[in-house]
Amino acid sequence: MADNKKMVEQITDMDQDFTQWYTDVCTKADLIAYSHIKGFMVIKPYGYAIWENIQALLDKRFKATGVENVYMPLLIPESLLAKEGELVNGFAPEVAWVTAGGTEPLTERLAIRPTSETVFSDFYKDDVHSYRDLPRLYNQWCSVVRWEKETRPFLRSREFLWQEGHTIHATKEEAEERTQQMLNIYADFLAEDMAIPTIKGQKTEKEKFAGAEATYTVEAMMHDGRALQSGTSHFFGQKFSEAYDITFTDKDNQLKYVWQTSWGVTTRMIGAMIMVHGDNRGLCLPPHIAPTQVMIIPIQQKKDGVLDKAYELRDRLSSFKVKVDDSDKTPGYKYAEQEMRGIPLRLEVGPRDIENKVCVLVRRDTLEKIEVSMDEIETKVAELLDTMQKDMLEKARAHMAAETTEAKTAAEFKAHFEKGNGFVEAMWCGDRACEDKIKEELGVTSRCMPFEQKEISGTCVCCGKPAHKMVIWAKAY
Amino acid sequence: MADNKKMVEQITDMDQDFTQWYTDVCTKADLIAYSHIKGFMVIKPYGYAIWENIQALLDKRFKATGVENVYMPLLIPESLLAKEGELVNGFAPEVAWVTAGGTEPLTERLAIRPTSETVFSDFYKDDVHSYRDLPRLYNQWCSVVRWEKETRPFLRSREFLWQEGHTIHATKEEAEERTQQMLNIYADFLAEDMAIPTIKGQKTEKEKFAGAEATYTVEAMMHDGRALQSGTSHFFGQKFSEAYDITFTDKDNQLKYVWQTSWGVTTRMIGAMIMVHGDNRGLCLPPHIAPTQVMIIPIQQKKDGVLDKAYELRDRLSSFKVKVDDSDKTPGYKYAEQEMRGIPLRLEVGPRDIENKVCVLVRRDTLEKIEVSMDEIETKVAELLDTMQKDMLEKARAHMAAETTEAKTAAEFKAHFEKGNGFVEAMWCGDRACEDKIKEELGVTSRCMPFEQKEISGTCVCCGKPAHKMVIWAKAY
Repeated sequence: MADNKKMVEQITDMDQDFTQWYTDVCTKADLIAYSHIKGFMVIKPYGYAIWENIQALLDKRFKATGVENVYMPLLIPESLLAKEGELVNGFAPEVAWVTAGGTEPLTERLAIRPTSETVFSDFYKDDVHSYRDLPRLYNQWCSVVRWEKETRPFLRSREFLWQEGHTIHATKEEAEERTQQMLNIYADFLAEDMAIPTIKGQKTEKEKFAGAEATYTVEAMMHDGRALQSGTSHFFGQKFSEAYDITFTDKDNQLKYVWQTSWGVTTRMIGAMIMVHGDNRGLCLPPHIAPTQVMIIPIQQKKDGVLDKAYELRDRLSSFKVKVDDSDKTPGYKYAEQEMRGIPLRLEVGPRDIENKVCVLVRRDTLEKIEVSMDEIETKVAELLDTMQKDMLEKARAHMAAETTEAKTAAEFKAHFEKGNGFVEAMWCGDRACEDKIKEELGVTSRCMPFEQKEISGTCVCCGKPAHKMVIWAKAY
Repeated sequence: MADNKKMVEQITDMDQDFTQWYTDVCTKADLIAYSHIKGFMVIKPYGYAIWENIQALLDKRFKATGVENVYMPLLIPESLLAKEGELVNGFAPEVAWVTAGGTEPLTERLAIRPTSETVFSDFYKDDVHSYRDLPRLYNQWCSVVRWEKETRPFLRSREFLWQEGHTIHATKEEAEERTQQMLNIYADFLAEDMAIPTIKGQKTEKEKFAGAEATYTVEAMMHDGRALQSGTSHFFGQKFSEAYDITFTDKDNQLKYVWQTSWGVTTRMIGAMIMVHGDNRGLCLPPHIAPTQVMIIPIQQKKDGVLDKAYELRDRLSSFKVKVDDSDKTPGYKYAEQEMRGIPLRLEVGPRDIENKVCVLVRRDTLEKIEVSMDEIETKVAELLDTMQKDMLEKARAHMAAETTEAKTAAEFKAHFEKGNGFVEAMWCGDRACEDKIKEELGVTSRCMPFEQKEISGTCVCCGKPAHKMVIWAKAY
């Protein structure tokens, strides 16, 4: 019991210090450990199992739309990186440079990839000749390095894992369609599998990806009302194909530049999941993502027949991800651990339950206890996991709706963000100076211009000039 | 047909120039492309799909023995890398060094991981306290960088993909057992899934991994009789745990150093598969590994009902990895492409076949044509894939047996390698000077001391002194 108390006490209360609570969950739920280098983390087995589930589910969605996986070189020659000016200017301050190979200095510095538009472009240049070769729908799962100043596990680290899709197309329309298609896949995956609702929209010029013509985003709201950009999809037009000379002979026998997209999500999504669903007991995982969906905890396990029953139940529940905690810890410690790790369902079974042919299921999201007949355990577990998956999304949706308000005037806008967080819907004139001013004064950024627009007022929430674009504003991670 | 000819003609004959044949297959079968940096390759969709299959099958075997996946930092501080002297001396000439992050020079150089013993050790040091925390059975799938001078796709590249398992244990026996267990998993996987027979044995002091107490290997024979080291498993004793201070409190309340292992296989295995099974038509993939197992090629596909029948057959064969080549290429071109890509079975179906309710299956390994009734197509495909998987292993076994000979004397040994390749079984006194001399004179290395020993002669094949160890010698990749 000493250990049990220690475990729970060491989590900071999320309403007192959300930042510390987040860090506590990352380490206490055994997701990560810090390494010797700032911003480089160890992803521990439990954290990595979550990432493997995310990968498998997303990869399936990608492949269903014809995407193929590849692997591109980790290192990029400086001259290659520099061919597209905007991109290199955007990433130059964040690049880690390799200057020696073995005992020899290199004649040209090599960047560890911060993103691979340049490498894919260089590859496509030689790979594609005719319209028959198009589209190319390639993706890679890999790690990238960006030398960030401030770092936090999953949210902002110098190395992170991600997928980056890079596609090229014969027509503008097809590339634009792919950009939207992948954004929709992210939004659907986040909602259906991670139980995270998002707002889809377009980034402003200020916030878009370096080198993109248009950047689309899915923005999620964390428990503390801050925004987290959870996935982006970029339309490049012909910028990269012109810079890297990716041409093809079209049906009309004309040499043309391809149209290009890229799109990515990262281990950041794990950070989003922690901050959307977690509570003061720790992590709370949606059933689709949980490495263990049901933890069976035997009560008085030394008594005859208890462990046998636990194993029997495990075998009956083998179509789910199920485990028995048969360690010599106390049940109380096991409960705390299962809750900390966010395992969706706890199944308690002891001598009296066995006598009565029942067991107790405890939902991680609501902590509700449900006594069920052992005869119908398979059905009940299936129903509950399904219900939890939906309820967690609904709860997060309700939270986002409750924390989203409209602001018609600069005064309203300022008053809102001076006292709190959340999303504010307000009109914007389109002028970058207004975005800069809002960021400087309130630490608030434009998250996106949502696809679903509405008219809040006729004037810009910053300068008061006529405005036609509704923007979601928030403090962001 | 012009294209068809071009495709086939451009492969060099394997018996004329095996090296060029290998490179041709790598590029013509669409496995890889060269990148801007020497030794860094692009793994194209077909090559990567093969790697994904290898990963999935191996990962399942690992997890069945309790192994868990993690992710460790890409970069290693020089001081951390240097803590274990033998390892750093072994890898120093091959390390790529990061010296700047963004616009700032780093205060300490960072190595891109050439292997991660040091990082795992540093992590375990803080992660493990008591015998209850042991064993730790961690593995990661990642890329590593070694600045090789000579590079060839898959076989030796500056960046390659691999898995590296790193385990720690409370006892020497348990660590030794794990070392053997993983070697057996490699041998079983290579035989059962990749249809590659291997010889299991221990490396000599000269050939073992830098820092290991013992290195075990699985050695495969390529078509040209050369050896390819296809997987290794290392027993470290307490060398790393002493250097990195990885201690635990044992049951007897004593502070002890852990016992450690590591084991890995790489994208090199794809090179092995090419060189064991390939022929002058290109790649030949074992059914367990093939991204596409059956390619349906419609004959006279513009005739009524042909394409419909092809799709119907595809749907009926959906429990296999099956595709229809309905492109507008000629059947001849499609055959050549399917053969080049090593797709195990070709299913030809045309108007006359439809009339006769038959179709033709062609085995990639033997090129045998088998007419089968459409009614029993599912059973026949299953049988043939199963047979091919076994036959390919048997064929490779027969080749290895035929190309393995014994040498009793230095003269016999020398005569053999002066006229050819293959494995030679011969006795060795245990003296490194003999290994050095054999390497220098004949370009031949000791591949391993096989677990299955036999007495060839009483004396060392090099110096003639008494010898008790039988060694497999070969020219190697």
